[in-house]
Amino acid sequence: MQNLDLSPPSGTRDFFAEDVKLREKVFSAVKEVFESFGFLPLETPAFEKLDILTSKYGDEGEKLIFKILKRGEKASTGEADLALRYDLTVPLARVIAQYPEKTGAIFKRYQLAPVWRADRPGKLRYREFYQCDIDIAGTSSLLADAEVVLALSEALRALGIKDFFFRYNSRKVLKGIMQVYKVPQNLASDVLTALDKLDKVGLPGVSKELLELEIPADVVGQITDDMSSPGAENQIRKRLRESEIGQAGLTEVDQILSLVSAVLPDARVLFDPFIARGLSYYTGPIFEIFTSQSKSAIASGGRYDELVGMFSKKDVPACGGSLGIERILALLRETDRPTMSIPQVLVTVWNDEFKADALLIAADLRSRKISAEVYLGAGNIGRQLRYASNKNIPYCVLYGPDEKLKGEVAVKNLRTASQNVIVRKDVGDFLESEIKILRGEGAK
Amino acid sequence: MQNLDLSPPSGTRDFFAEDVKLREKVFSAVKEVFESFGFLPLETPAFEKLDILTSKYGDEGEKLIFKILKRGEKASTGEADLALRYDLTVPLARVIAQYPEKTGAIFKRYQLAPVWRADRPGKLRYREFYQCDIDIAGTSSLLADAEVVLALSEALRALGIKDFFFRYNSRKVLKGIMQVYKVPQNLASDVLTALDKLDKVGLPGVSKELLELEIPADVVGQITDDMSSPGAENQIRKRLRESEIGQAGLTEVDQILSLVSAVLPDARVLFDPFIARGLSYYTGPIFEIFTSQSKSAIASGGRYDELVGMFSKKDVPACGGSLGIERILALLRETDRPTMSIPQVLVTVWNDEFKADALLIAADLRSRKISAEVYLGAGNIGRQLRYASNKNIPYCVLYGPDEKLKGEVAVKNLRTASQNVIVRKDVGDFLESEIKILRGEGAK
Repeated sequence: MQNLDLSPPSGTRDFFAEDVKLREKVFSAVKEVFESFGFLPLETPAFEKLDILTSKYGDEGEKLIFKILKRGEKASTGEADLALRYDLTVPLARVIAQYPEKTGAIFKRYQLAPVWRADRPGKLRYREFYQCDIDIAGTSSLLADAEVVLALSEALRALGIKDFFFRYNSRKVLKGIMQVYKVPQNLASDVLTALDKLDKVGLPGVSKELLELEIPADVVGQITDDMSSPGAENQIRKRLRESEIGQAGLTEVDQILSLVSAVLPDARVLFDPFIARGLSYYTGPIFEIFTSQSKSAIASGGRYDELVGMFSKKDVPACGGSLGIERILALLRETDRPTMSIPQVLVTVWNDEFKADALLIAADLRSRKISAEVYLGAGNIGRQLRYASNKNIPYCVLYGPDEKLKGEVAVKNLRTASQNVIVRKDVGDFLESEIKILRGEGAK
Repeated sequence: MQNLDLSPPSGTRDFFAEDVKLREKVFSAVKEVFESFGFLPLETPAFEKLDILTSKYGDEGEKLIFKILKRGEKASTGEADLALRYDLTVPLARVIAQYPEKTGAIFKRYQLAPVWRADRPGKLRYREFYQCDIDIAGTSSLLADAEVVLALSEALRALGIKDFFFRYNSRKVLKGIMQVYKVPQNLASDVLTALDKLDKVGLPGVSKELLELEIPADVVGQITDDMSSPGAENQIRKRLRESEIGQAGLTEVDQILSLVSAVLPDARVLFDPFIARGLSYYTGPIFEIFTSQSKSAIASGGRYDELVGMFSKKDVPACGGSLGIERILALLRETDRPTMSIPQVLVTVWNDEFKADALLIAADLRSRKISAEVYLGAGNIGRQLRYASNKNIPYCVLYGPDEKLKGEVAVKNLRTASQNVIVRKDVGDFLESEIKILRGEGAK
């Protein structure tokens, strides 16, 4: 025996049946909604060629990429040529650029799949976690942006999450804000990062960061006044009149808000001029979806019209969004456990001579879609019944020399401790109707 | 634009909707069968700590492991500390050793998941491919071995594969054969590898390899005579009388054959003394399942009573089997394409002022589980109808100023080229019944 640490690698998890079942149930509900919107599934490999992923995620992101060592003789060079998927968007952009004939003029796809990031593990922060993305490529119509948000909110609703609200902004609004505050272009992205932290560090924190960036004190005062004013949104709307690109962004945001509000009249849909959504590939409208149960966004996305162009000669406008599925699973975990798929029947084994009989009875039950386990351990019938009881299996089938002689089978209901003797060929019929009653489907 | 090779990495694949749907359909049929046998799902991370995987797969296997470079400052060392999952059995053994309280006395699990091997890519040989495993840990009862084979054959049957047959052997039989042929112990594993190649290289090929291993010519003659004799099985049965471990292996095989035959009286179940199943962790009965459509085995497995012991102080006997799911998918691909899940309705967009109306009509349809796509491109209604026709979408909804005025919606059936005008609030009802008729569910 080797002396090894047997826990899964840092930031990863082993999932037992109950968790797998919950995750599958959630994934399948979400996929059904996405398909009802006309999104179709795509699967890409777990790893990509390293150069496909480099220079796509910014300096901070790049450090978190898991790189795969070259194989064979080249392994000793210590060089990497492949890397684990860091998100689902860059592989999508590669696919759109690689197969124009398959992705067509407009390509709507969903992908639910794990990604890997060498982030510092923490609460709800994993190194292996699922992303759940929808994207629409090939159109710059804002209808596409609206469809993405509508599909995500329908998926949330299908999962029983109803108290969500939207925050909408546009990268163009952010550019406009930088113009009207006269932030030098080389500082713009740092300033945006600072503004994006309002939820986390509060106004004094933002102010401190801005001063550290050597933004003049009067400008910082203006910014924090704007951010803290009760009519911050209107204040910014006024200021943006001075910026052409800011105006264009505002028009985008207002159009999407009006489309989304038309379909979801009760939804809380806000223009929030200070959300920035990281700083990677977004070019236009961006959004976050929140629920009162979670401090962080449970879904987000935006328009990225230039990403596919990094792989293709053709510009392909695109937008998309992502459900924070691990965060959502954590919200559901407490309230929405699925019924465990334990076997419904334990077929006991009288002794070695009755092994084949046990298999035959189990095969009969399984052919009727009754899940049946044959007892595989050692021990007498008492021990076998205890095994079933511990596993919460409701029925035990008993078949020994007496039953064989009479052509019968005994069926024990462990929940009621009652026992029925059934003609052997009828045991399937009997258990079928018993299980229906147990499930509440049949008459009592 | 970067100048990059945009194909997926060598040996991996991008799957579009049609393939994803076929794979999901097959996976879900297989899982249903496994659950009916009382197997439950387990998911483990895509990568394991490197030392969990080393020394488990033999020298050849070890070379094919994808290793992951250390992160952060340690990246420059060129060292690896993690590795992609090479199979599903070693992670299972880790899980059994790590969580005895969760895996219990007897643990039956299935896992359908990708594994990664840096093999030379070829026809049906991929670097990323799915494995589909069932295993039973915690019992040395041969009933468990029989259950594994029965569950795999039930899964094959559920996929429509019915002409399969079984080849059974035992590692103990192979040890016995080495004894009776007086093969020196240090050559035993090479000799077994040579015998295992009978299907691939034929009798002369086996003979040549054995002579190269410096097995005496008279012994090679004896072996090849045995292998080629019409009653090879009986010849070996006779010879094994001289070997205690060989006898024990034969008894095991005969017991499993008799259990499997009891449940599958029509199945072709053979004792094949020359199958060896690679040379890794098997200790007892081993098997392969073949179909006439494929030269190689489509399922295989065996008993490995010592693997968990490599991680745990406690010996945990175990056996399992695996469907060659990629091979099986290739067999199905031609005959069993699932119906594509294309949207059922295209909601056209008259002009910019009708965007919100289009979204509202789509939302109504989607709430009735009708999959509806809103047209997101540019272009007049003629172009929108052509788009639907190209995508094979059967219905188009038209809603312009005339319809708005009258409170109506026009529904065009592209298959019959007929058009109906419906009161707007009834369009959902109308399309619901139309789609039922299209699917053959409703009355004409």
